[in-house]
Amino acid sequence: MRYACSGGKRLRAFLVLEGARLHDVPLDPALDAAAAIEAIHAYSLVHDDLPSMDDDDLRRGLPTVHVKWNEATGILVGDALQSHAFALLAGANLDGSRRLALIADLARCAGGQGMVLGQALDIAAETADAPLSLDQIKRLQAHKTGALFGWSATAGAVMADADAAPLSAYANALGLAFQIADDILDVEGDEAQTGKRVQKDSQAGKATFVSLMGLEAARTAAQRLVEEACDALRPYGTGAENLRQAARFVISRQG
Amino acid sequence: MRYACSGGKRLRAFLVLEGARLHDVPLDPALDAAAAIEAIHAYSLVHDDLPSMDDDDLRRGLPTVHVKWNEATGILVGDALQSHAFALLAGANLDGSRRLALIADLARCAGGQGMVLGQALDIAAETADAPLSLDQIKRLQAHKTGALFGWSATAGAVMADADAAPLSAYANALGLAFQIADDILDVEGDEAQTGKRVQKDSQAGKATFVSLMGLEAARTAAQRLVEEACDALRPYGTGAENLRQAARFVISRQG
Repeated sequence: MRYACSGGKRLRAFLVLEGARLHDVPLDPALDAAAAIEAIHAYSLVHDDLPSMDDDDLRRGLPTVHVKWNEATGILVGDALQSHAFALLAGANLDGSRRLALIADLARCAGGQGMVLGQALDIAAETADAPLSLDQIKRLQAHKTGALFGWSATAGAVMADADAAPLSAYANALGLAFQIADDILDVEGDEAQTGKRVQKDSQAGKATFVSLMGLEAARTAAQRLVEEACDALRPYGTGAENLRQAARFVISRQG
Repeated sequence: MRYACSGGKRLRAFLVLEGARLHDVPLDPALDAAAAIEAIHAYSLVHDDLPSMDDDDLRRGLPTVHVKWNEATGILVGDALQSHAFALLAGANLDGSRRLALIADLARCAGGQGMVLGQALDIAAETADAPLSLDQIKRLQAHKTGALFGWSATAGAVMADADAAPLSAYANALGLAFQIADDILDVEGDEAQTGKRVQKDSQAGKATFVSLMGLEAARTAAQRLVEEACDALRPYGTGAENLRQAARFVISRQG
């Protein structure tokens, strides 16, 4: 399982490919969908790293795009990646109605009611008078990272025109576990392994799952969510074993 | 003709609606396509106005998004508008194959081989050792503004699955005339009428159609391009009269 060596990277593509395999979707369109979600994810990282957003200089162990090139290039690279995602889906070797379903879902999950809303809530939180509550952080994360996890995990079912509810439940629990694990890594992680700056959130005094729940309770919650995610996969039997391993990996990863 | 009062604004929506009318496309999906191209155009303006791009503080007579709110909001608003454009097209009341054709075309025209490439060429020109040649400026503009003009003018034909070649030729000539007129307005225009800062390009010593051709030759070239654009509409007879008027308006506008 190659994803196991690559930290949180390419996890969304992995979810697409496993969901497609569970539904006997041919590899060719599955790869287009996997590439599309990685294009959206990469665009969001490049924009998120910009000086006026998170102002990060390190990503995946390399200088961020605006550091390596310049800020305008960072903005344009993100913009082009978003267009590219929709081009990939529009050209996938799939029935037209399935392509349109993927495109409509992705536009919704990535847009102003999805990921971009999550980013805006995150930025608003930085200048808010009081730190966010646990419910507010859950809402923020459900948009910021959860929406695209949901798209990724359900894309295979959408491509096959099958019931996506179990994979959607899996993704909801997985996304939240992933984010709690991210907050734990921000406190405990190592820059060489995560490939990005750590302790940014804790040093900035931002409310995180760890600051609100405490480290041990956060670990327990993440563990419970992983079990929940695995339980949601019951309809797929042993065929979903890779997805179960991915869920367990999400909370044990070091990067 | 309402567009005649609104300067260059909403010109792309007007092209979509007129192209749709020429092909008897129902108003409902035509409006979705018109709104989609305006969303893409608005996103490009909001990002283009950012400090690391053109650094503009005035747009359509109002403070730009990052001036009114902040830079992060400007980035996110643009990102959400791009997603929204694809959501509108995916949900349009049209045959699926026509929706997919619009989406694939828009992703290509807006993306890294279209508008974004034009923006990147424009930024590269600012730090180049020598000013651009006329051919280089034509190439830059064909991407930066021409690609979306082309999408707008041909969307009606695409929605009707009809030959888009005459409207494509119209758009090519119109796009170039529009850009020459823009360079003339940058020299001669008035901020109250254009709703944006003028003389930015000329003061920055940027090569423009006016700086390379001279004012009179630029005027003549724009006039000839408008005639070319009108000639391309011959197959549509008098039905295309609004599009001809729009072409003439493009070089006579004050804003």
